[in-house]
Amino acid sequence: MTAPIDFYFDFSSPYGYFASTRIDEIARKYGRGVQWHPILLGVVFKTTGSAPLPSIPLKGEYCWRDFERTAAFHGIEYKRPTHFPLPTQHAARATLWLQNHRGGDLATAFAKAVYRALFVDDINIAEPAELAKLAEGLGIDPVALNEGATSYQIKDQLKAEVDVALAKGVFGSPFVIIDGEPFWGFDRFDQVEAYLKSLRQPELRAVGGNDILKEKKPA
Amino acid sequence: MTAPIDFYFDFSSPYGYFASTRIDEIARKYGRGVQWHPILLGVVFKTTGSAPLPSIPLKGEYCWRDFERTAAFHGIEYKRPTHFPLPTQHAARATLWLQNHRGGDLATAFAKAVYRALFVDDINIAEPAELAKLAEGLGIDPVALNEGATSYQIKDQLKAEVDVALAKGVFGSPFVIIDGEPFWGFDRFDQVEAYLKSLRQPELRAVGGNDILKEKKPA
Repeated sequence: MTAPIDFYFDFSSPYGYFASTRIDEIARKYGRGVQWHPILLGVVFKTTGSAPLPSIPLKGEYCWRDFERTAAFHGIEYKRPTHFPLPTQHAARATLWLQNHRGGDLATAFAKAVYRALFVDDINIAEPAELAKLAEGLGIDPVALNEGATSYQIKDQLKAEVDVALAKGVFGSPFVIIDGEPFWGFDRFDQVEAYLKSLRQPELRAVGGNDILKEKKPA
Repeated sequence: MTAPIDFYFDFSSPYGYFASTRIDEIARKYGRGVQWHPILLGVVFKTTGSAPLPSIPLKGEYCWRDFERTAAFHGIEYKRPTHFPLPTQHAARATLWLQNHRGGDLATAFAKAVYRALFVDDINIAEPAELAKLAEGLGIDPVALNEGATSYQIKDQLKAEVDVALAKGVFGSPFVIIDGEPFWGFDRFDQVEAYLKSLRQPELRAVGGNDILKEKKPA
């Protein structure tokens, strides 16, 4: 059994959402699982001195255009959310609680439902009542989920999880780590796939270093 | 004659260098010319509150890895420069002076030579003497170039050019604008190409909005 790929994301990250629609499929293609890690970009930005994209002068106006264009380019459903930016702690904690108590697959299904709710159905996922509805749709007891997600144990765990991510060099969303190799951004998914491919062809890796990533030829 | 594509870059930008090796070829494929615009990211970052990538915590360590991996992935020659970051005003001004007095094609050839000197041959392109050598290699009188690049007229022009770029929403390097549509980053060159393609197929554009960019299918 090969170790899973680590997939870090914040629920308020549009590029994280795009990545969430592809990561499992890509990993499966190369015989790998995925460990989903909800993180809080607000905490990460305190370390990097960054800020949410839409709040940055010039970049802010551009990014809304880029979200839309990138979604269309990759054939991903996307609708500009009304509630944005918004707090994502509750959704992140709920995902962790599900991972702890209901297993990774259900937690991942929940995370995908949360992302879709925000970036396709324009639902305010900062509202516990909205998350409860999504949970019910997946057969999860919403009362147990809410109790778990608001427990001190889970709050502490989320803080610690973000600290672990920072210690591993994670500074954005989405962020993928494959056997120690870091990839930032949905626009690195072509390199993520090339890297996974190269790991299955050890004779190519022996050729040396980064040559393994020569997938594309000059246009 | 169709209007040229606008290509904005800072000589200290590795992703700008990668883009410089592809932009002319892509544009030519779709019957377009390219207007090269040297800019100064230092000035741009005062507006966006950003900083050079390698100086940002966590992102800084990652980016050196990403430069190398991205170059290898796209089959572009690249060697980590010793002199970095470094001032790029002189190179930018020299390029503008060449555009004014020797024509766009020679200016572009010079710009490509400067990029290659920094990111392949590890030459300190902040040194006027090094730029003079590159100029001589292209049959440019190095004395005239140096006089032109240090004139008040060209210094004022570079300031004004950066102001124009900011007014058009340019906030990074590379940055491409095609008939008003902005693309930031070498990792948007797949979308740049899809967009140019769509402009040559007006019947596809009529289908509506961003659908024209649906080039890739879900993986």
